[in-house]
Amino acid sequence: MRRNLTVNGDRLWQRHMALAEIGPVGETGNCRLSMSKEDGAARDLFARWCRDAGLSVQSDRAGNMVAIRPGTDPDRGLVAAGSHLDTQPHGGRFDGISGVLAALEAIETLNDAGIETKAPLAVINWTNEEGVRFAPGLMGSSWFVGELTDDALDASTASDGTTFAAEAEKIGWRGELRPDAVEMDSFFELHIEQGPVLERAGVQVGIVTSVQGLRWLDVIVTGMDAHAGTTPLDARRDALLAAAAAVQAINCEGRREGADARVSVGRFLPATDGPSTIVGEVRFVIDIRHPDNAVLGRLEAACKRASIEAADRYGCVATVTRRIAVPPRDFDAGCIDAVQQAADALGFSNMQLPSGALHDASNIAAIAPTSMIFVPCRNGISHNIDEYASPEDLAAGCNVLLHSMLSRAG
Amino acid sequence: MRRNLTVNGDRLWQRHMALAEIGPVGETGNCRLSMSKEDGAARDLFARWCRDAGLSVQSDRAGNMVAIRPGTDPDRGLVAAGSHLDTQPHGGRFDGISGVLAALEAIETLNDAGIETKAPLAVINWTNEEGVRFAPGLMGSSWFVGELTDDALDASTASDGTTFAAEAEKIGWRGELRPDAVEMDSFFELHIEQGPVLERAGVQVGIVTSVQGLRWLDVIVTGMDAHAGTTPLDARRDALLAAAAAVQAINCEGRREGADARVSVGRFLPATDGPSTIVGEVRFVIDIRHPDNAVLGRLEAACKRASIEAADRYGCVATVTRRIAVPPRDFDAGCIDAVQQAADALGFSNMQLPSGALHDASNIAAIAPTSMIFVPCRNGISHNIDEYASPEDLAAGCNVLLHSMLSRAG
Repeated sequence: MRRNLTVNGDRLWQRHMALAEIGPVGETGNCRLSMSKEDGAARDLFARWCRDAGLSVQSDRAGNMVAIRPGTDPDRGLVAAGSHLDTQPHGGRFDGISGVLAALEAIETLNDAGIETKAPLAVINWTNEEGVRFAPGLMGSSWFVGELTDDALDASTASDGTTFAAEAEKIGWRGELRPDAVEMDSFFELHIEQGPVLERAGVQVGIVTSVQGLRWLDVIVTGMDAHAGTTPLDARRDALLAAAAAVQAINCEGRREGADARVSVGRFLPATDGPSTIVGEVRFVIDIRHPDNAVLGRLEAACKRASIEAADRYGCVATVTRRIAVPPRDFDAGCIDAVQQAADALGFSNMQLPSGALHDASNIAAIAPTSMIFVPCRNGISHNIDEYASPEDLAAGCNVLLHSMLSRAG
Repeated sequence: MRRNLTVNGDRLWQRHMALAEIGPVGETGNCRLSMSKEDGAARDLFARWCRDAGLSVQSDRAGNMVAIRPGTDPDRGLVAAGSHLDTQPHGGRFDGISGVLAALEAIETLNDAGIETKAPLAVINWTNEEGVRFAPGLMGSSWFVGELTDDALDASTASDGTTFAAEAEKIGWRGELRPDAVEMDSFFELHIEQGPVLERAGVQVGIVTSVQGLRWLDVIVTGMDAHAGTTPLDARRDALLAAAAAVQAINCEGRREGADARVSVGRFLPATDGPSTIVGEVRFVIDIRHPDNAVLGRLEAACKRASIEAADRYGCVATVTRRIAVPPRDFDAGCIDAVQQAADALGFSNMQLPSGALHDASNIAAIAPTSMIFVPCRNGISHNIDEYASPEDLAAGCNVLLHSMLSRAG
């Protein structure tokens, strides 16, 4: 491989800053909800950069943008890379954006060096990854792989009553490209980690082996309302105390399963809000994640048991029902290997890790060999205007992306 | 004492049922907010019963109703008893009402038996004990003892904008009686326990020795918001987990101080409500009660320390500030003794206990010798349409009240 072929990190950074001027929030934040005026402006700028780089830009019913650089072998499928340009309402400048711009930068680096590939290359901007204005999230990639029907896509409605179909037409990014006309050899997604693992390990490149699975459990702890002054401690059925014990217990269950386990409670709703009333009911949701489906199952059973036992200890009753189960998604061994070899050859410190968050790559992995490259982000912060990845780390990740694509495209 | 002098339990019960027809809620509940039309109707009915019993009925600026039966010794102060006729919005038929009706029944029993007393006797209906429509609660008795100014009383405003003064005028219960014209020898308040202690002990009469003190602590636990999927368990500063540990720890501190200690959290507010977000901040209020001020101080210090330590254990910070401190109020030894002797002489099973809730008697204790009589209530339930005290227990409590008043009035 051509180790001295490196991307233009300065151009990559400048493009991040240019996009950040569209829909600014505060000093360093962005709001570009899918199919909004701001999303339209970002798409237009990105399309101009693609066309300036000689790529042909097409879009599909979901507004996904596919910018193609032809290969020399007409029989080869697309070696594609990308992510998303939409943001959270108080989002940052990197989540999604970096993956789209890195893919474009990889292709422009090849243009600058006059290098052709056998397989065609593509840069993709997947529509509405964040799922803020229109539901569900991962909308464009879900539709692309057939997980979301045409009707469901078109009818998705924002809180102001506008439909996805109408808004996509309005900003001019609803095209005719059909997914079955896109033969994909492979897909790579560069993304900020959105967690602290790489930063804490002092590692510059993350090689993502899988997207962890998810289970949500709805728990209702039922005790009895009572007067805080008149009811002795041993005569109470205090649902808040019981739920607090459950929160403690499920954390212990998570720790027991090691570093890859995630267990938390983010929604916790006592039924009453009076300082002098013993709470008679609490509802909460347990979020469980792990890359291994068997461990997910063990954790679900353990969290259910721990919640029921904690409630019983305080004279309460817990009912536990599963709301969501998303299985883990393993990435393609060949694509993981391509990323690993590129990172090693370029001399970047690196580690393999599962993804804690869902990404468009999880969907694409169902139809094509896929893997991801993680870039460290400061303090693990994302979905926040303080989100930050350094120009150096972005360039390192982009170089790994470039050489991963090259190894695949020949 | 005349042990065979007993109240008419049937009349006492019928009057409960007659009052319950004013402002009914469901089958067995009541809504008579202070100075409402319903409160006015209840006052009018009560005043009619008093006048029929030969009592003179007066009211004061706060709408407190004082119904007096003269004594034979013009130099003696009033031996008074009473409670309140207002209810919670979904209140029961006994909380407050029983104390007013029992005082009237005691006097009618003396009428029926043709017994005069040296000291004059009085039945009092204290205004707005519940504090639902107008703040504060214990309004009438607070004004009566000088804790609430005339201006604050008059200006107290309901959520619909009406003032206490205007509403009291409207229903015709704003009189000229001045508190300093009422010389009170003593005050007795019969009340349902509002807790499960008597029922659990299988005891028919509670002799109330004090009203426990109260402290409220405001706690803010600060951690950091994070993504539930990407943030390893040992990299989190999970404020919900820390607050849950604090709730557990302060419960242990309460149990350490024995049967009279009350420690609970009834207000618990996570700053975020997303199942996949680690909670960055939780605010909660600790409610601490005990009849002994020294123990209250120990509990406050222990709960503060336990909250700070629990937060620290999970990388969070807790700030703890005191919002309210109400000292315990000991009742008068002579009045307690009068109740104890009456209960013993009448052969009722009984026990001494502190009151877990505040009552008008706590205020009156500041200006006159006072004590209370508790009647068991089913399952300790109050402020609820399921509130229930049996006719037998009410009659027993009323007999104790009658003989307590007699021993004081001579």
